Amino acid sequence: MEEHVYKIVEIVGTSETSSDDAVKNALAKASKSIHNMRWFNVTETRGSIQDGGLQHWQVTIKLGFTMK
Amino acid sequence: MEEHVYKIVEIVGTSETSSDDAVKNALAKASKSIHNMRWFNVTETRGSIQDGGLQHWQVTIKLGFTMK
Amino acid sequence: MEEHVYKIVEIVGTSETSSDDAVKNALAKASKSIHNMRWFNVTETRGSIQDGGLQHWQVTIKLGFTMK
Amino acid sequence: MEEHVYKIVEIVGTSETSSDDAVKNALAKASKSIHNMRWFNVTETRGSIQDGGLQHWQVTIKLGFTMK
Amino acid sequence: MEEHVYKIVEIVGTSETSSDDAVKNALAKASKSIHNMRWFNVTETRGSIQDGGLQHWQVTIKLGFTMK
Amino acid sequence: MEEHVYKIVEIVGTSETSSDDAVKNALAKASKSIHNMRWFNVTETRGSIQDGGLQHWQVTIKLGFTMK
Amino acid sequence: MEEHVYKIVEIVGTSETSSDDAVKNALAKASKSIHNMRWFNVTETRGSIQDGGLQHWQVTIKLGFTMK
Amino acid sequence: MEEHVYKIVEIVGTSETSSDDAVKNALAKASKSIHNMRWFNVTETRGSIQDGGLQHWQVTIKLGFTMK
Amino acid sequence: MEEHVYKIVEIVGTSETSSDDAVKNALAKASKSIHNMRWFNVTETRGSIQDGGLQHWQVTIKLGFTMK
Amino acid sequence: MEEHVYKIVEIVGTSETSSDDAVKNALAKASKSIHNMRWFNVTETRGSIQDGGLQHWQVTIKLGFTMK
Amino acid sequence: MEEHVYKIVEIVGTSETSSDDAVKNALAKASKSIHNMRWFNVTETRGSIQDGGLQHWQVTIKLGFTMK
Amino acid sequence: MEEHVYKIVEIVGTSETSSDDAVKNALAKASKSIHNMRWFNVTETRGSIQDGGLQHWQVTIKLGFTMK
Repeated sequence: MEEHVYKIVEIVGTSETSSDDAVKNALAKASKSIHNMRWFNVTETRGSIQDGGLQHWQVTIKLGFTMK
Repeated sequence: MEEHVYKIVEIVGTSETSSDDAVKNALAKASKSIHNMRWFNVTETRGSIQDGGLQHWQVTIKLGFTMK
Repeated sequence: MEEHVYKIVEIVGTSETSSDDAVKNALAKASKSIHNMRWFNVTETRGSIQDGGLQHWQVTIKLGFTMK
Repeated sequence: MEEHVYKIVEIVGTSETSSDDAVKNALAKASKSIHNMRWFNVTETRGSIQDGGLQHWQVTIKLGFTMK
Repeated sequence: MEEHVYKIVEIVGTSETSSDDAVKNALAKASKSIHNMRWFNVTETRGSIQDGGLQHWQVTIKLGFTMK
Repeated sequence: MEEHVYKIVEIVGTSETSSDDAVKNALAKASKSIHNMRWFNVTETRGSIQDGGLQHWQVTIKLGFTMK
Repeated sequence: MEEHVYKIVEIVGTSETSSDDAVKNALAKASKSIHNMRWFNVTETRGSIQDGGLQHWQVTIKLGFTMK
Repeated sequence: MEEHVYKIVEIVGTSETSSDDAVKNALAKASKSIHNMRWFNVTETRGSIQDGGLQHWQVTIKLGFTMK
Repeated sequence: MEEHVYKIVEIVGTSETSSDDAVKNALAKASKSIHNMRWFNVTETRGSIQDGGLQHWQVTIKLGFTMK
Repeated sequence: MEEHVYKIVEIVGTSETSSDDAVKNALAKASKSIHNMRWFNVTETRGSIQDGGLQHWQVTIKLGFTMK
Repeated sequence: MEEHVYKIVEIVGTSETSSDDAVKNALAKASKSIHNMRWFNVTETRGSIQDGGLQHWQVTIKLGFTMK
Repeated sequence: MEEHVYKIVEIVGTSETSSDDAVKNALAKASKSIHNMRWFNVTETRGSIQDGGLQHWQVTIKLGFTMK
């Protein structure tokens, strides 16, 4: 097994549906420009409110991928 | 754009259904007495257990709203 | 009411379905060997990624139970 | 069992006697205006010093109570 | 010297001018409804950006005042 | 002097009397099953409230002991 | 309103003048290569010292912008 | 009121009696060499264990005093 | 791929030689009673001092292993 | 380039004027007894309040200097 | 001396040999695409385990470099 | 066993060789002026970079010693 080096970037996904979907939306967007994504961890869960109810989940993740 | 001042209060919502619903229940209750709610962030996710299974999700949020 | 003593253990549940289910899977596994489970709190939410999409949610909880 | 919502407020109790009494003084004062207090957790323990000795314990607690 | 009890509230002040003024704006607004304010500590410094430049400083403070 | 290895477990002691006694109760219970206890550090101090007054101190400690 | 995804980058601005200017210098430099900047938060305030006096403010910010 | 400058030092007091006394012992020792002590805050509470019971409370404080 | 559940335990390894060896000593000891060890992370690096020089490195790790 | 050793001390500067000046006042006072000051980082920003307005900025810094 | 702006990126280096080498491997890889690297700080030290022994050190660093 | 009081100072050791040696260099320098050193804990590991490679390890420790 090789000695890999990974890079970590921080991304905020949003969703009107659920906090889990906010993460998935972040991954979907990131996968368009980043290859070899390996793991993520959630660092913050926020949301915007409109008319007294939840408008958007905003979930920040740190995303790790293999550096080529 | 004006220079607003916001107040932040800390609330714990609970739900038997999901951690997301615990947040929504907190917002629903808060919206009865607080107007101009703008954002929240999750500060803790806990739960109570009964008979070996999850009983209630208990999610603490900080809730920001415009001071009038 | 007695003066109980509780023990806290740290467990990571995983799920392909949702972050909430990762917690439930951790509780289900723990309940086979631990009795008198009382509460938990989430300490970390991570995930593994495969082919550019979420593979497994990995949620770490601290789990409290009454010491007999 | 219902799905309660709780509010958390932050209070600093002081005492010349002990750090524990500073917490009790905070609860005693808070109980005059807050009903349905359920739990607290200590977030900071400080003190003032006079003439080279401890003058007042100053203990900050977060105090949770049921929102009606 | 009496054994006072203090309450702490969390407020976000904003300013187009400076981070210090954001704190002062928070205090000015709070002083209209809160008496006996004693101290504050800064817990977060953020800002909004418009057209590539700083729009508003947003400074969160915890504000302590004597409970009567 | 040997190169020891220690294990750390997390325990919550409770007491109606004082926060110090909550720690001692945790140690007394732990000493029935754990030998070679060496040190502890307090990680959280909480309490339950009943009828507007403190019911139980709940103090969480990390407890270190020599692995045999 | 769309479900945006944001990226967060970490930048250190410096200034001989003030801590606020260090932030503004960071934004000015970043705006040359990053479009759609939306918000920042300060994560560290440091400084270098020369001849017993402040030489440069060094302020670290996390800077969020919309991913296209 | 003048613009004072304060220095903060970190000290660990110990006591066989109570965690509060460990703080007082730290202050008593410090007062022999430090004048103008103004405040302290507790940063860690630990203890050593002997024969299955608490031997010494070890409480770390940060201690502030006016620089002359 | 299955939905595994992992347990995390906290262990302190010591070594007179190096901080890395303190970790290896912790793993060597733990491997005698724990199977299926998967990962660790370092949570604290301390050391004892004797005669003005380093006596033992004391490195605390959290150790994750698959629950069977 | 030599292998220097640095010492870090913690100081609180105050100012009626600005948070930046509180840092400068701390450096000015420290420079009277400490030589070879190299860097600082801000660890806390507080303030005292009088008559509903800001009285003194109180900024805590960690100050690093070369040990001779 | 100019008012520089720095960027910080987060990288994970791995090594079978030592935790220090994991950092060096991260720097070696990063130096291929990043110029003007100035400093780093370690934010996490982890490792993977195989057959009961340490397989790879995984050390996360934040790496600062001058923005041109 | 007496009720000792300890003082904690913060020191940064540097080394071109290894992070462990940076700690040892800090202890060696400190031992010239401080007697009765008892323990340390590492609070930060940084490094300077020159020509794309590691120049100096810079390790910050808190160092505890018995107050006489």
